[in-house]
Amino acid sequence: MLTLFRYNWQVRDEWFEWCSQLSIEELNAERTGGIRSILRTLFHIVDVEYSWICAVQGKQVKDPLFSDYQTLQKTKALSDEYRDELEKFFQEEWPVLDNKKVTPWWMEGEFYKEEVLHHVLVHEIHHIGQLSVWARELNLEPVSANLLGRELY
Amino acid sequence: MLTLFRYNWQVRDEWFEWCSQLSIEELNAERTGGIRSILRTLFHIVDVEYSWICAVQGKQVKDPLFSDYQTLQKTKALSDEYRDELEKFFQEEWPVLDNKKVTPWWMEGEFYKEEVLHHVLVHEIHHIGQLSVWARELNLEPVSANLLGRELY
Repeated sequence: MLTLFRYNWQVRDEWFEWCSQLSIEELNAERTGGIRSILRTLFHIVDVEYSWICAVQGKQVKDPLFSDYQTLQKTKALSDEYRDELEKFFQEEWPVLDNKKVTPWWMEGEFYKEEVLHHVLVHEIHHIGQLSVWARELNLEPVSANLLGRELY
Repeated sequence: MLTLFRYNWQVRDEWFEWCSQLSIEELNAERTGGIRSILRTLFHIVDVEYSWICAVQGKQVKDPLFSDYQTLQKTKALSDEYRDELEKFFQEEWPVLDNKKVTPWWMEGEFYKEEVLHHVLVHEIHHIGQLSVWARELNLEPVSANLLGRELY
């Protein structure tokens, strides 16, 4: 499963790079569907992944506020900071797939750890699909979502 | 990994159901990004999944032509027909994750079986993300992509 996280991280970094051609107005422009702007989508992906994987570890953390991350650089820095921590977690504590359930601090319900990790993976890929439509609406070629040829295996 | 296929199949079936509220003109209307129409996207997802999983099995099959499947009912029937076969394959021949590489008949390159299955999973989720934007452009609520609460675990 870590390979799929690595896929997501590689694609996400390519989107951060892709975004550097856009103005801050384009990054924050209101769009149709999903999380309604490109930058907010990237922030949301970063935030959701980290929160859920903290929940898997039984840690409660303070949610970052989008109002503190309204530039590409700040959101990318947050992604990098969290990534370092997640890499360590995956390397040191994997596998975490025991049958204990996870209760996140922000909602009701209990979920298997595997279920949570799958949720996080799927969540990012789904939102990246939305970015690809918005890219075409800007007459720009989106980042490729192709998993093949990324030398992950 | 089969759980993620089941997630994709559940979401896909919900999209087929969702599509039944649209006219054939709306299903085939040219849209921005991805595979350019809702029906063509669903057909493409179905076709790509089946072709790759046949390739994993070393089987070569004839590609269906979209021109033969230009109604929702026909594309859904194709999805169901393939699904039956894929379910059987997953149940009877799983795990297939040996280290042998797969060469598909329609392109160059060799890929690990796990890589191919991950590719197929990610491919569908990505295109479903695109459908969700097009749904909002039609002022309709998209099918939820949320993996949690689907009782897959």
